[in-house]
This record gives sequence, structure tokens and C-alpha cells, in this order.
Amino acid sequence: MKKKTSLSVSGFALAVLLCSCSAPKDQSGFPLILPKEKPGRKLSAAMERNYSAYMAPRPEHNELYSQFKYTELKGLDYSNHDGTITRRDPSKVIFANGKYYVWYTHRHTPTPPQGPERCTDTIPARDWDLSEIWYATSEDGFTWEEQGVAIPRPPKPNPGWRSVSTTDILEWKGKYYLYYQAFQIHPSKRGDDCPVAVSYADSPDGPWTPTNKIVIPNGAKDEWDGYSIHDPYPLVYKGKIYLYYKSDFDGDPRWVRMQGLAIADHPLGPFKKHPLNPIINSGHETTLFPFKEGIAAFVIKDGNEHFTVQYARDGVNFEIASITELMPIAAGPFVPDAFTNTQFGKGITWGICHNTWVKGHSLLMRFDCDLSLDVNDPLMKAHRYSYKPEFYYEHGLKKEQRKRIEDETRKLKGE
Amino acid sequence: MKKKTSLSVSGFALAVLLCSCSAPKDQSGFPLILPKEKPGRKLSAAMERNYSAYMAPRPEHNELYSQFKYTELKGLDYSNHDGTITRRDPSKVIFANGKYYVWYTHRHTPTPPQGPERCTDTIPARDWDLSEIWYATSEDGFTWEEQGVAIPRPPKPNPGWRSVSTTDILEWKGKYYLYYQAFQIHPSKRGDDCPVAVSYADSPDGPWTPTNKIVIPNGAKDEWDGYSIHDPYPLVYKGKIYLYYKSDFDGDPRWVRMQGLAIADHPLGPFKKHPLNPIINSGHETTLFPFKEGIAAFVIKDGNEHFTVQYARDGVNFEIASITELMPIAAGPFVPDAFTNTQFGKGITWGICHNTWVKGHSLLMRFDCDLSLDVNDPLMKAHRYSYKPEFYYEHGLKKEQRKRIEDETRKLKGE
Repeated sequence: MKKKTSLSVSGFALAVLLCSCSAPKDQSGFPLILPKEKPGRKLSAAMERNYSAYMAPRPEHNELYSQFKYTELKGLDYSNHDGTITRRDPSKVIFANGKYYVWYTHRHTPTPPQGPERCTDTIPARDWDLSEIWYATSEDGFTWEEQGVAIPRPPKPNPGWRSVSTTDILEWKGKYYLYYQAFQIHPSKRGDDCPVAVSYADSPDGPWTPTNKIVIPNGAKDEWDGYSIHDPYPLVYKGKIYLYYKSDFDGDPRWVRMQGLAIADHPLGPFKKHPLNPIINSGHETTLFPFKEGIAAFVIKDGNEHFTVQYARDGVNFEIASITELMPIAAGPFVPDAFTNTQFGKGITWGICHNTWVKGHSLLMRFDCDLSLDVNDPLMKAHRYSYKPEFYYEHGLKKEQRKRIEDETRKLKGE
Repeated sequence: MKKKTSLSVSGFALAVLLCSCSAPKDQSGFPLILPKEKPGRKLSAAMERNYSAYMAPRPEHNELYSQFKYTELKGLDYSNHDGTITRRDPSKVIFANGKYYVWYTHRHTPTPPQGPERCTDTIPARDWDLSEIWYATSEDGFTWEEQGVAIPRPPKPNPGWRSVSTTDILEWKGKYYLYYQAFQIHPSKRGDDCPVAVSYADSPDGPWTPTNKIVIPNGAKDEWDGYSIHDPYPLVYKGKIYLYYKSDFDGDPRWVRMQGLAIADHPLGPFKKHPLNPIINSGHETTLFPFKEGIAAFVIKDGNEHFTVQYARDGVNFEIASITELMPIAAGPFVPDAFTNTQFGKGITWGICHNTWVKGHSLLMRFDCDLSLDVNDPLMKAHRYSYKPEFYYEHGLKKEQRKRIEDETRKLKGE
């Protein structure tokens, strides 16, 4: 075998000897030690981007790259997860009166959600139907004490009489404002049609005063936010209220989900929608925070740019800052500088998110990450999670896919 | 409560009435039906990108977006997963003689890998140490029959005498070529130092003739591929052999993993490394295929652009084509037009990948996807997988992270 080999290759020996692989045409090979700054040499598009599009050429040095860790919350009861109690869509977490506060959609109904065709005045169509805004406080962010209702459903026909849900908190000049989805019809087969309403209070403990007006109205019926304004998410930025929101549109056959921005000088409006809306092309629920001179955003679940953290230096024109995995759903982060009109946002390290589980109900959980300029936690900066074979097999082919594959093989064989 | 509310808001009523939210400054709202082509209006950076950076504004219409499904292979024994038998780093799958072929790293040693300090001439340092290239065939792509060795370790001091691993296949003018990592030292604490060798045959069943020469040499010691050329991956493109490869470099504290390209007019060289290398800034093992007029690539696991499918119209300058999740590890796809010098690649729908499991051994599995212009499988085009709360909690905080978090809360409370 050895002898045969030597003979067989003789014809190719010259070619191999002449190999000039290590002497590229116009520059020597890229350096062994990855330069921290963009090197002065011709770069491929990918290498150019590795230096221009990200905060660092390695993700572990990218302040807007993180993995996410999850912890079960203590102190909240879910009626043995029978679907009758839900807590979902948490607000940002704030720190006030020496403790943490979070607000969320709370549903407690006689049955789990029954769908838009079987719902009644007391039976919910969806998990966020017939809900109120409740809140909880915590000393440590892990154990939470539920404090009860903050925003009840107002009497018909006020906005939100059917359901108030998916709230977020603003602090502005010593007052607190809760923005929320104000349903006047139950979530239907068309989708979750609703605008945004607001209530305010002198203390995070309330009492909350509803304006009983729509504060962010839907767009015209032929516009992207004509039917829904979801997940209102206020931050103080450039001395104004930057309220980000999501809308579902198109719907053929699936919703397209994108995010917009409405800006106001006062928490009760008027809010002016940004002419460049949508300003985030993907994602699901809104999660944003001041970062350096701009605004960073979680872009989760849906769209071409799902699974990314994005950054807009101007709060409007977002670019991908990192690509990650297992992002928190509907995250409400603790944003220490959400309302300080900071000129240089420091980022976030934790918050509350949700997970929709059995019997159509949801629960709150805690997430942690390192997206903060103040923290350096290498345990959050691994490049990926690893999973067992069984986990992959759980993502298996459907019967109709097996049939397609068998057909393709038969065709290839000329059968 | 209701009465108090009405009185309290009177001061804000005018502001609310004046809200001009649905009348943006210089253009009406974005349309309700997502335009299939870029609309003629001012767009945010994100919307501009949604039309320019992706093949479609919705991922489900993006021919280079897919989820991945996994199936356990039948027919391969792993000695009860005791770590003594491994199969990993599959080649591309080819169809020849009426059946599918795949080549892979095969290790069968008395013990599982023991690390670089405890390895011997018969005890492996790593999973790919003391390995040979074996192959298997299949009628359907799900059940595989192992055919035995294709490339044994050659006698010392020929390249690969310590281990031959991580092979890939080329068909060129009726002959077959297997490229592989040719270890002359065991994988050490420094890393996997090796160049690339090649063997050739008239049939995929062999016999294989080794050239016993290095065909893609490492770069200079101060260059990015100075120590390792991993995962050689040949395609026929523009009438030449485009061989993509990965290298590990820097190494402080972790390897940076990027990918390069070497081009030749003949399978045995000379291969000329591309002057713009590295041409992919992230990823781990190489997986590429002709797509339309260019080349598409899986970018997995590592780096700023992990979890992406990328595309280079010229085979060199790669851009992100989609962001996805649970990508196959070390995928060797079935690429029907890998060697046809196609002017318009059709893409891929399946292949073999690996998973490293208990006791440091690996197994082969099948993946399916829809990254093909010839297939339209909506079941592959969902936007994301959903997981239970328990799955999130498995990604939990370490004790030292809990301590950091407790310290931060104490600091916030002024304790």
C-alpha cells in the first residue's frame, strides 16, 4: 500500500511543491493575535463588519452581548397551574422606598382562556383578556410579595373596560405613570385590537388615577398601527418621554411584528409618533434601556432580526449590536437610569420576564444578564449553550416532512 | 373612585385632545400591509435593512432562513456510549452508485479521551485524537451501514500518523478526493495544531491513495492560520476548487475562530490562500454550499455572528442572510450541486451533523432544513422554538453570580 502510494502521487509532487499558499497576492496573512482595533489592511466584508458593526471584535468584550440566566420566583401562587391565574408582561422593575417594584398583567378567571368564539363577560378569550394590572414588591428581586391591584378594569365604556394589560411604568417629576393596553373588545380572531391608556399616582403604591382617555391612539386603519398599540414602554431620553411600542400588522397569514416610537413632552401627551416608524423591524414585546448616548433594545422571537440586542445612537435608527440565544420573553428589566434623563446609559443586569405554559397561563420568572457597563461577569459571556442529543431530537420532523424527504430520495434514485 | 378620577384629569384633558399622534411630520404612517418590495418613503435604518439585507422582508419568505429538525440515525453502534467509540465531523453527504455516502472521524480506543497530559500512543488526548476516516452508506439517509475505514493513519512520519480527522469530500473530473486534518502531534494544551492532507480514489468506495504530503500548509507562525487548518471543505465554484477552512487563533484566553478560503485549479494544489482571509468572522466547523450565483455558509457556535446563515455573492465577502437557532454542529450537508460548477446553486435540505456527549465521545445525527430554492416547507419557517419554564431554569445562576447580585442590591439599599 505504501509503495503504491509513493508511485501514484509522483505526478502531483511538482504541483504540491509549487504551492504558494502562505504568500497571498498583495498582503501577508492576517495576524495570529486578533487586533483589538481595525488593522490597516484590506479586509473581507466579514472582517470589516467585525470591527465596525460590533462594540468589540470578540463577543466576550462586547458590552451589548450577553447570555441569559433564569431563576424561578418565590412568593407567587398559580393555583397549581390550572390556568385560572396568570401573571405576565411585567413592567420595568423600579427601585423605590427601599425595595423593588414590578407591575404586570394579572388574570384570575373561573376557567383558562377559551378562545375568541367561546369567551363571555367572565370567561377569557386569551391569557390577557379580562385582566387587571397588579403589582408586587421584593427585597432581593427573587422573592416577591404580591400587593394586589394597581389598575382595575374601568367601568364600560371607558378604555380598558374589557381588559387592561401589558403595562409599563414611567417616573416623571416625582409622579408615576402606568401605561397599558386598554381593550374595549376581547382579543378576537383578527388580533389584539387596542390603544394605550394611562393612569398616574404620587407613589408607586398608588392610588392610581386613570385618565380614562386614550393617550396613544391607533393609526389610521390602513396604517401599520391601525389596530394595535401593544407593550407601551416609556423611557426618559433627551429630556422627553420616548415611548416605544409594538404593533401587529399585515396578518397574511401571520402577523408582522415591528416596533415604533411616540415622543411627548408630558406623560399625558400629546404623543407624536415618529415619522420613520417602524423603527425596529422585528421582535415581539418591547424591552429597551438607555445605553451610552443612545438606546438599546431586545429583539426577540419574531422577524428577520429576532434573537438580537440592538442599539440606536439616536434612539431611532437601530442596528444589530449582538446576536444571542434564549432571550427573555416580554422582559421588564431593572433600568436604574430609565428616568434620570441620563446622557450616558449604563445598561442592565436583570429583570422579570414571562413564560406562557400549560393551560394557556403565564408565569413570571427572573432573568439575569450582563448588558451593563458597570458589571463584568465573564460567566454571562460564553459564546453558546450546549445541549444533549435528546434535546435536538425533541425538535423532530413531522410525518408530512418525512414523506417529502422520502419522495425526494425516490426521485434522486430514479424510482 | 370614579368621581375623583374625573376631577383629577381635567387639567390634562386639553393636552390629550390636542394629540397629533396619527399625523407624522412629513409622511403618513407605514402601510398596514407590509410591502413586498422596499416602499418609496423615508425609512428607519432597521426598515431599510429589512428590505436590503435579507432576501425577503419576512423570514418565512427568506430562502436562506430555516429552522432545523433532528433525527437519530439508525445502524451505528457506540458501545453503550462508554466513550471508546466516536463518530464525528461528517463530510458532505454525496449521492453515488444509487446511495448516499458520508465520511467521518472514527475513533475506537481502549478508553475515552484522557487529555493532553495523560495521553499515550494508544490513549487519546481528545475525541479526535488517534482517529481514522471511516465511511457509511445509506439508502434513505436515516439508516446507515458502516463500511469501515477509508483513510487509515499513515505510518510515521507521514502527515496524519498521529490522527487523521475532520474530512470532507470533493468530486473532480471523475475522481474523488478526501481532505482531512493530518495530525503529527496529539492535540495539546496549545490547541489542535495540524495542516491538511489529501487522499484520492476512483470510486467513493476507494481504495484511497494518500499523497502523504501537506496540501494546505499552515501560514507563518505569526499569521492567523499559523498553527491550525481545520475542517477543509471543498466546493467547485467558478471552475476552480474553493476550499474553505477554519482556524483557531489568538487564544487569550479563548480561541478566536474564523474561516478562510484557499483556491486551486487542481485538487492536489497548489492552493492559493485568499488575500482577504479570514472571510468569515465567526463560526466553528465549516458548512457551505452553492446558492444562486454565490456561496452560502452556516456560522455556528462562536464569534459575533454565531447563529447565522451567511451569503457571499462572490464566495468571498460574506453578509448575514438570516439569524436562526439550534443550528447543526459540524454539519455535512447533502449538496446536490457541490461539484457541478453550477452557475446557480439550489441550496440544501438535509445532512449529517454531530453532537459531543457523555464521556467525551460524539455521535452522528441527521438534520433537516429548508435552505433550498427547490423546496418550500413552511414547517421549517416558524420564527422560533418555544420552551417550558424548566428549560429556562436549567440555565441558572452560579453561586458567585448570586453573590454579586446580592452585593449589588445591598449597595442600592445603602446597606
